[in-house]
Amino acid sequence: MPAIVQEHGTGQVLMLAWMDDEALHRTLTTGRATYWSRSRNEYWVKGETSGHAQHVRAVAVDCDGDTVLVTVEQVGAACHTGNHTCFYSPLEVTS
Amino acid sequence: MPAIVQEHGTGQVLMLAWMDDEALHRTLTTGRATYWSRSRNEYWVKGETSGHAQHVRAVAVDCDGDTVLVTVEQVGAACHTGNHTCFYSPLEVTS
Repeated sequence: MPAIVQEHGTGQVLMLAWMDDEALHRTLTTGRATYWSRSRNEYWVKGETSGHAQHVRAVAVDCDGDTVLVTVEQVGAACHTGNHTCFYSPLEVTS
Repeated sequence: MPAIVQEHGTGQVLMLAWMDDEALHRTLTTGRATYWSRSRNEYWVKGETSGHAQHVRAVAVDCDGDTVLVTVEQVGAACHTGNHTCFYSPLEVTS
């Protein structure tokens, strides 16, 4: 399921990643954001290689139980490009 | 693709919905958040029946171009349950 990652304090939305039940369980029990990589077919602990860890402050599930919102303290940049957030490219709203 | 919906001003994450290219195009050109319903196989303009519209303030795409972040002014409640946000159910972080 999709996991929306929001920064504690700033409220900035940092990224979207994917979790299965095991990734969610690991996230809740370790306090380190852990996702399922759909391209590599493996679990990954955010920051394990980059050092840009996410320390989990809170997790909430949505009304129909198929999306989670993970509130984190982000070490360094969330995005692999070096940007703090993955959502750094605005689209033009023309209305 | 997933569309994360965040409230302008408060920064609260309200919901996650789904868009295809056409839904994104309609959202950008009408200024009204428009999604693709995966269960009903149809486009839906948020608030069209409920009145709980989302007026779009900004849209950003993520680094790999497969998720959008939609910043909205929310009329009434985003969630069909009447809650302001769909993410009203905390899970316990036990670490």
